[in-house]
Amino acid sequence: MVEIERKFLVKSLDFKDIAFKKTRIIQGFLNTDKARTVRVRIRGEQGFLTVKGLSSKDGLERFELEKEITKAEAESLLKICEKGVIDKIRYEVLSGNHTFEIDEFFGDNQGLIVAEIELQSKEDIFETPEWLGKEITGEIKYYNSQLSKYPFKLWK
Amino acid sequence: MVEIERKFLVKSLDFKDIAFKKTRIIQGFLNTDKARTVRVRIRGEQGFLTVKGLSSKDGLERFELEKEITKAEAESLLKICEKGVIDKIRYEVLSGNHTFEIDEFFGDNQGLIVAEIELQSKEDIFETPEWLGKEITGEIKYYNSQLSKYPFKLWK
Repeated sequence: MVEIERKFLVKSLDFKDIAFKKTRIIQGFLNTDKARTVRVRIRGEQGFLTVKGLSSKDGLERFELEKEITKAEAESLLKICEKGVIDKIRYEVLSGNHTFEIDEFFGDNQGLIVAEIELQSKEDIFETPEWLGKEITGEIKYYNSQLSKYPFKLWK
Repeated sequence: MVEIERKFLVKSLDFKDIAFKKTRIIQGFLNTDKARTVRVRIRGEQGFLTVKGLSSKDGLERFELEKEITKAEAESLLKICEKGVIDKIRYEVLSGNHTFEIDEFFGDNQGLIVAEIELQSKEDIFETPEWLGKEITGEIKYYNSQLSKYPFKLWK
């Protein structure tokens, strides 16, 4: 249940050509408190309700529980979510024996592209593609929960 | 249907010998905002994650989505809930043709035991067991939502 994720900015759009999967994601939050984030998500035709806890001090581990719900249930929940629903396309890209999930944001977060890789352990080694930019693991402003409150377009 | 419930303190532990059912209930909240309440509950060996929206203006309807989760999942979620997790054992006791639900609280509400009976109408007559104490129907401080914020141990 504890996942190790590292997050990076993305320097170019070259990843799009090699993506093996592309999914529209719409999500909102029933709570954006970092200590008990509750997310509602529609991914393609599926719905999900996901709870996350605080990150560990090094930002690498975070408690997460995800339950699948129907798309209709997710649509109902999105109606009572906090303001700032996130709309993005997720590209999945193979890199060595890992998969990068790359989120291209729209709406108030247009212009932001973030890549995430899930690792088995802190020591797990992974290849670094050319398009991968600066690491932003643990930077709270890039959390989706924060992007819904303080979107990318307001950062400057 | 309008339920009529009357609530009482409990004077002795004699009810325990005649209870036909005993269930441990532990519950906490991932969000107490009335517009998007997210409750985690363990009831016996089952877990539940429940989302509720605002009540309609007439108070009769409230959006609710309840998903069963495992007890282990609920235990993990309780660790990240807001402060004031409620921990109690609910005893069910037959009395005449009614059932008393008696909640014995633990943790910060240790020492508090509350019995509740559901009646068909205001005129509905029920037997008064010896262990039944002072009536506390409608006293807000005994609401579970209040007990999690202002627990029994802080009352004096």
